[in-house]
Amino acid sequence: MIVVMKVGSSDKEIATVVDRIEAAGLKTHMSQGVERTIIGVVGQIFPELQDMVEMLRGVDEVIRVSKPYKLSSREFHPFDTTVKVDGITIGGKGIVVMAGPCAVESEEQLFETARAVKAAGATVLRGGAFKPSTSPYQFRGLGEPGLELLAKVKKEVGLPIITEVMTPGEVEMVARYSDILQVGARNMQNFNLLEEVGKSGKPVMLKRGLSATVQEWLLAAEYVLSQGNEQLILCERGIRTFETYTRNTMDVSAIPIIEKVSHLPIIADPSHGTGKWYLVTSMALAAVAAGADGVMVEVHPQPDLALKDGAQSLTFDNFRQLMSQMKSVAKAVGRHVAGHSAKGNS
Amino acid sequence: MIVVMKVGSSDKEIATVVDRIEAAGLKTHMSQGVERTIIGVVGQIFPELQDMVEMLRGVDEVIRVSKPYKLSSREFHPFDTTVKVDGITIGGKGIVVMAGPCAVESEEQLFETARAVKAAGATVLRGGAFKPSTSPYQFRGLGEPGLELLAKVKKEVGLPIITEVMTPGEVEMVARYSDILQVGARNMQNFNLLEEVGKSGKPVMLKRGLSATVQEWLLAAEYVLSQGNEQLILCERGIRTFETYTRNTMDVSAIPIIEKVSHLPIIADPSHGTGKWYLVTSMALAAVAAGADGVMVEVHPQPDLALKDGAQSLTFDNFRQLMSQMKSVAKAVGRHVAGHSAKGNS
Amino acid sequence: MIVVMKVGSSDKEIATVVDRIEAAGLKTHMSQGVERTIIGVVGQIFPELQDMVEMLRGVDEVIRVSKPYKLSSREFHPFDTTVKVDGITIGGKGIVVMAGPCAVESEEQLFETARAVKAAGATVLRGGAFKPSTSPYQFRGLGEPGLELLAKVKKEVGLPIITEVMTPGEVEMVARYSDILQVGARNMQNFNLLEEVGKSGKPVMLKRGLSATVQEWLLAAEYVLSQGNEQLILCERGIRTFETYTRNTMDVSAIPIIEKVSHLPIIADPSHGTGKWYLVTSMALAAVAAGADGVMVEVHPQPDLALKDGAQSLTFDNFRQLMSQMKSVAKAVGRHVAGHSAKGNS
Amino acid sequence: MIVVMKVGSSDKEIATVVDRIEAAGLKTHMSQGVERTIIGVVGQIFPELQDMVEMLRGVDEVIRVSKPYKLSSREFHPFDTTVKVDGITIGGKGIVVMAGPCAVESEEQLFETARAVKAAGATVLRGGAFKPSTSPYQFRGLGEPGLELLAKVKKEVGLPIITEVMTPGEVEMVARYSDILQVGARNMQNFNLLEEVGKSGKPVMLKRGLSATVQEWLLAAEYVLSQGNEQLILCERGIRTFETYTRNTMDVSAIPIIEKVSHLPIIADPSHGTGKWYLVTSMALAAVAAGADGVMVEVHPQPDLALKDGAQSLTFDNFRQLMSQMKSVAKAVGRHVAGHSAKGNS
Repeated sequence: MIVVMKVGSSDKEIATVVDRIEAAGLKTHMSQGVERTIIGVVGQIFPELQDMVEMLRGVDEVIRVSKPYKLSSREFHPFDTTVKVDGITIGGKGIVVMAGPCAVESEEQLFETARAVKAAGATVLRGGAFKPSTSPYQFRGLGEPGLELLAKVKKEVGLPIITEVMTPGEVEMVARYSDILQVGARNMQNFNLLEEVGKSGKPVMLKRGLSATVQEWLLAAEYVLSQGNEQLILCERGIRTFETYTRNTMDVSAIPIIEKVSHLPIIADPSHGTGKWYLVTSMALAAVAAGADGVMVEVHPQPDLALKDGAQSLTFDNFRQLMSQMKSVAKAVGRHVAGHSAKGNS
Repeated sequence: MIVVMKVGSSDKEIATVVDRIEAAGLKTHMSQGVERTIIGVVGQIFPELQDMVEMLRGVDEVIRVSKPYKLSSREFHPFDTTVKVDGITIGGKGIVVMAGPCAVESEEQLFETARAVKAAGATVLRGGAFKPSTSPYQFRGLGEPGLELLAKVKKEVGLPIITEVMTPGEVEMVARYSDILQVGARNMQNFNLLEEVGKSGKPVMLKRGLSATVQEWLLAAEYVLSQGNEQLILCERGIRTFETYTRNTMDVSAIPIIEKVSHLPIIADPSHGTGKWYLVTSMALAAVAAGADGVMVEVHPQPDLALKDGAQSLTFDNFRQLMSQMKSVAKAVGRHVAGHSAKGNS
Repeated sequence: MIVVMKVGSSDKEIATVVDRIEAAGLKTHMSQGVERTIIGVVGQIFPELQDMVEMLRGVDEVIRVSKPYKLSSREFHPFDTTVKVDGITIGGKGIVVMAGPCAVESEEQLFETARAVKAAGATVLRGGAFKPSTSPYQFRGLGEPGLELLAKVKKEVGLPIITEVMTPGEVEMVARYSDILQVGARNMQNFNLLEEVGKSGKPVMLKRGLSATVQEWLLAAEYVLSQGNEQLILCERGIRTFETYTRNTMDVSAIPIIEKVSHLPIIADPSHGTGKWYLVTSMALAAVAAGADGVMVEVHPQPDLALKDGAQSLTFDNFRQLMSQMKSVAKAVGRHVAGHSAKGNS
Repeated sequence: MIVVMKVGSSDKEIATVVDRIEAAGLKTHMSQGVERTIIGVVGQIFPELQDMVEMLRGVDEVIRVSKPYKLSSREFHPFDTTVKVDGITIGGKGIVVMAGPCAVESEEQLFETARAVKAAGATVLRGGAFKPSTSPYQFRGLGEPGLELLAKVKKEVGLPIITEVMTPGEVEMVARYSDILQVGARNMQNFNLLEEVGKSGKPVMLKRGLSATVQEWLLAAEYVLSQGNEQLILCERGIRTFETYTRNTMDVSAIPIIEKVSHLPIIADPSHGTGKWYLVTSMALAAVAAGADGVMVEVHPQPDLALKDGAQSLTFDNFRQLMSQMKSVAKAVGRHVAGHSAKGNS
């Protein structure tokens, strides 16, 4: 931590700052600049110290130097984390494709989609049973019956499942059905939920909040990791910007950033990331070219009849084309699209 | 709802759009423009219709005309809602001041602050027992013992209490202690929590999310109101902008906007809204001048020793000065600072 | 400047950083933290040094400590700057009201408005002859004939003029007619224009850019001041946020921030700041309560017939009411609305 | 244009709206909804009409249906525009690489870089002689001597030149030296400059503003196109978001959006788009995968000694690796990296 004193701060003010910090058991180093004094603080800094020092007379600014996240940081954990789900490895050489409908609507819709995406090469089935909705008057998912359908499809079609959990009290139930627990963008800072999925021991996929910085996202990851659960995947799904043409702006640069600062695998969701089906393929390819460990895509038998987010869903045909192009781009960057567990993957 | 067809859309495409809409039981009105056809849709529109129509060939854009919020809208509820708490009216002529520490730290800190803010004219005591924190390594509140301290102070000092509830499973417990349940900015779209505080029947204060639009905020309010709970207060506490000098940018214009589009009372929180104690007074006065029904301010006996958010807390002296200036500004706009319930308040 | 080395940076890497900095004629102070080394840099830092050091191996981050603006900073110029225009003082106790139409449309419109706003207490007449417009197909102002009308009104009605200049080549011409040169939000970083208005020696009003931080705004001010022109006024006119209800979000907190960090006078423009006439009065009062040195308001004889920005213009009646309320609020915060120069003003 | 009346608007109010619109020579179509009346407006709508109607009593909202840009729109110009520069085609199958230093610093630096980037496969040389700088105290380019160096390098090394022009008065001079005129992000709404480069007849590259929407960008393009200059290239160079890790957030989705809504070629600038050299390669590959017509990259012989933006510049080695990877990704999406004009290019 570095304390920048104001131009013209008095010796007494400087001495008070030093006293307070040393009283907290830390050491100080003073630098006398041309215009002002700077005090370096060394030792295990507790978070409230910054606020306290900022209040003292003569202090202009307090700058934190250590990154506030630890467990998610590559500095403290240099090797890539891989998450294993039902024989599939996320975070290895293979690019994992998670596909399926935005929301589970019916047995028929789910089975048809699961078979189609599996045939096209997807290795995880996505589908929401609990759907966050900005309005109480919209479709909010089938609830537990939706989870039962997912479990049934999993068994018969043979694809592991990822589905969202929205509230701490439902983590246990959702974890009984799902292979990966998804925490949605609106819940990225639902700290109780983060701890609960951490405790569950299940693989977790944490979506980035709509206006979250990378640092805030990694701090949210820290809530999961600090419960001892290291099976954590990050997912970029678009941030809020001034652009109105798309629903969100998918931040492709988050992919190489995460790769640099963290050891956690990173997945891209171009369906939510753009909100427009005709942008999904371009953005999925961009994500793979930028180094993503996987892609999550919404697919629906009849997007124009979908109960939720039809405008961002691919048809089966579109999805097959995407898979084919993705294989070429993956190869161009020295990777491959991960196959089904039976065939081996990584 | 209005469907804008593309330039050059075919008669067949137009006919399909009309068929689909009418099959859903709605009526259409067609307008032939110079460049394109526009189809007006009349009837009770269900939310998925927009997505469905957007997918059809030849459709350029689908525009919603009805506002998606109803119960919170002034159009459907023209008269001001007032919230009554322990003899105090929020949303009337009197401007209500809620003050207290960011977090409950100790009995002594809470009592001292409660007495000081009451003496200076505050009518509600604020204090957090459960604190949202972006990092799992920071102080997160005393929990239920903090609520017990609030209840004790309420009884002895005689100020109603507002405190935050963070998770649906704790609503019942927090409601036993607190007069007003606060839903924090990070939970504005925690839909399960919104429903739970709605069901509690207790007065609720809903803070605006960090990057929420007014419409999203009112949709979140709709979750509470649709549970039959009309004792709802809105609170502007700063939105995220590119400015780095302040922690957030307090959107003062939200105050007259809410007054225009909604019947709900609106409170401003300049402490979180700025994050700097030396901006709090100016912004509290601005809020009152702009028409706020109340102000929520953080006050601490020794801000430089606070465990949470000291940098944005006023000292007792600063708070007394603020109250004095606020009285003048309130008078200048034809209002007054609400007094304690014993003395009557309106 | 502070150089934060990576965790585990080698002694050789640290030595290279120190060598490079000292080769540039600066001194270094080293602090050995628990996790990493921090190097303080003392001396007159030239701007490219930061980039250069950031590139060196083992460097994690380079933090600037000195604020990059000087001439606009209160630290280096502790006393308030006042700008004198035609006997009026901007930046003193008196709150200056600038009012008039968005665009000069006709002699009749301008005279009628000038007389009405003067009668109601405005002391400066605003009116655009060159109008920035996001589309080339919209009304872009009358040009020089508009300036001639402004000069004529000035002479006959007796109000000094403020009008916008958009391009360096027109500064000389506009300066012949106008008392204050306005640089618009879209030109806040038009560096050639800033230097040209600086050289003109005329009073300048610099609007904040739509997504500019306070620091960027003050750096733009620095371009004007560094030409030796200290007659500079800042104007907050709304920043871009995610809110769609208003055209912009007027950042009221910029007013006390500028007062704290700079000596320059600060004006608020609630007409552009909100884009809605029915929000203008509330926001003008908020600005005054927060400490603004003046307010700029659009007034039009028939807003619904205005060629530009009618939706944000007040009628004469609305303006008179605003002036009356503003007087009360100014008094409540220990100031007054500045009168005409004849009557004296401070 | 569509006029949405308020719930409960009177027949008289509706009649006034209809009268005003028809008085302006346009036709109206009325739709009576369940809750409110909607008036469709047909005819050539002039821009001020929206403002005017918005002011009328009983009107809730006025929605524009026609897109405000025409000349840049694919609807009105279905086939791809290609820009020809010195035998190179921008906007065809070949992906054009523009590379060079951020700023021209010296003859040696420029020659060395030009030879290296040409050898590695770049087809256009970039280099700034006039540099926008947020602070007046930073390096702002060599000016005309920098242009002379560019012209010399062009002649000897054989690469066409792109360089920035910052002010209308310098367009003629810069156009004498440069093959493409670049308008920078900060000048995207410098309307006089846009018209001047339009009049020059030279190929123009228009960078997206830091907080501009795609629509605002295309409206800026409209200023150039409406001068009869169709040799226009768009360049995505990162927008401002809340992320602080990168300097900007490169909006990769702008690439397929522009391809869909406009006929103009689109280039990506990952150097400014990220501000970090180690993110440039990933983002360049992402841009190509997403369909970009070219990439602009900063390259410097010794980035750690660069006078400007060293932190975002690639070394010669990094650039060669980028070119090699880009060729693979281009092939994977059915394109190729454009070669030098001698070898032919398409």
